[in-house]
Amino acid sequence: MEARERIEGALQAALKLTQSPEGPGLLEDALQHAVFPGGARIRPRLTQAVALACRDPYPAATDAVCAAIELLHCASLVHDDLPCFDDSPMRRGKPSVHAAFGERIAVLTGDALIVLAFETVARRVAHLPALQSGLVVTLCRAVGMPSGIVAGQARECEPGVPLERYQREKTGALFAGATMAGAAAAGVSPEPWRALGDGIGEAFQIADDILDARSSADRIGKPVGRDVALDRPSAVRELGLHGAALRLRERVEQAVASIPDCAGREPLATLVRAQALQFVPADLLPVAA
Amino acid sequence: MEARERIEGALQAALKLTQSPEGPGLLEDALQHAVFPGGARIRPRLTQAVALACRDPYPAATDAVCAAIELLHCASLVHDDLPCFDDSPMRRGKPSVHAAFGERIAVLTGDALIVLAFETVARRVAHLPALQSGLVVTLCRAVGMPSGIVAGQARECEPGVPLERYQREKTGALFAGATMAGAAAAGVSPEPWRALGDGIGEAFQIADDILDARSSADRIGKPVGRDVALDRPSAVRELGLHGAALRLRERVEQAVASIPDCAGREPLATLVRAQALQFVPADLLPVAA
Repeated sequence: MEARERIEGALQAALKLTQSPEGPGLLEDALQHAVFPGGARIRPRLTQAVALACRDPYPAATDAVCAAIELLHCASLVHDDLPCFDDSPMRRGKPSVHAAFGERIAVLTGDALIVLAFETVARRVAHLPALQSGLVVTLCRAVGMPSGIVAGQARECEPGVPLERYQREKTGALFAGATMAGAAAAGVSPEPWRALGDGIGEAFQIADDILDARSSADRIGKPVGRDVALDRPSAVRELGLHGAALRLRERVEQAVASIPDCAGREPLATLVRAQALQFVPADLLPVAA
Repeated sequence: MEARERIEGALQAALKLTQSPEGPGLLEDALQHAVFPGGARIRPRLTQAVALACRDPYPAATDAVCAAIELLHCASLVHDDLPCFDDSPMRRGKPSVHAAFGERIAVLTGDALIVLAFETVARRVAHLPALQSGLVVTLCRAVGMPSGIVAGQARECEPGVPLERYQREKTGALFAGATMAGAAAAGVSPEPWRALGDGIGEAFQIADDILDARSSADRIGKPVGRDVALDRPSAVRELGLHGAALRLRERVEQAVASIPDCAGREPLATLVRAQALQFVPADLLPVAA
């Protein structure tokens, strides 16, 4: 099966757990809306690629954590778009969940997606009990307190937070979780895989800042110019466009260099570079970078 | 150790996982505010009582799921109090999380508490891998889609939902999860313990409706008269005060009758009756009931 199909299949299987003929229809629809059709599925692709580089001995575990990583990501997007945060009317080129279903359903959608991520792992990895605890802890560190996504998001409510820490928590933590969970799903120690995720996460955040400063809503499917409008820290605001583009390239190469010895090191390096090239369309980067 | 101290200790141990000298201070404080000091801890007391009735062979698992059940309950309270839902300024006799810390931190507090519930189980039950999957699935069914707390909460966004289903999801599901998780933590099949939790949950919801209609904010630490103000289904609105009080008593006795055979059946029955008596102060009930 193709890499992408495996991930979509795992997500569909996960969403089935939330469905019932007698369930609340509006929330059921909102969960579908939040997860399908997806974006590039960058994070679960990374999880899967790491597991494959480690020979993917437990594909059911790989598929479950790929789904969990993407569900947690979708949950963070839905809550991030809420009126009290970014108040974003668009996401992935269509109405955000709160714009389409209302604020209450959007809060519940995020909650339900978080729960579903853990239920998916518990059910699909039940036959591999030795892997469970490590997988769940890796996921929790990536999204929870004190240094996962919610921590990064909370930094927006505090003054004077360093850009690097803010980005590492809000974006990098889930990328690190993605690579580490891929290793854990293959029965490999996750810690040596942290640097790869950290590096890709930082590159991705820089790319996101460049898109916010230089692209258009039509092109990226969500509002732009939000960092300045909301006075948020941003690599472009701190380093300028040229400096941001240089740092992006540098961080991708550092990430690739950090890949631990494993069966599929070279194909993984190729995939990471290819993915990173797609973070920002070439015409939005300064010529010299 | 006393029953109550065990639960508070487990919750303190869980909250420690969220703390770091470099973590976001506001969110860290909000998590404490949401969990301590607690209410009666009715749900984890029930979990613990069931585990004890089944001889409590794995106390670490019992403590972890007691903490998880209460953390999930606290998360639902924090999100339930948000401006887009009940817009409640008070909870447990002090400002609600959004009133004290703002709406953004309140959304993140609920998210972080959900994650923490699963992290607590994953870490504290890591040495009992055979129990993990069952515990996590039991927790997820109680709070997630399609029939846990979030489903019940979502019913408030739909017209014409039957009272019984709404209450079973919004309140009963976590009580059923509490009794079932207590059994699972003792290595006992959880399904036979569902009816006990269902019954106590329904009794508790009826009691809550009676308090909302008859008590005062000073007395119960949160606003009253909300069911009528927000046009929500309620046992008192449907059955009248007398009918609601009769149904409450009936449901407690059905719950007690459902307790499966186990080592500590009698003390458990006594505890369930004693807890239920505290749901509503006697002076708020009609004399004939």
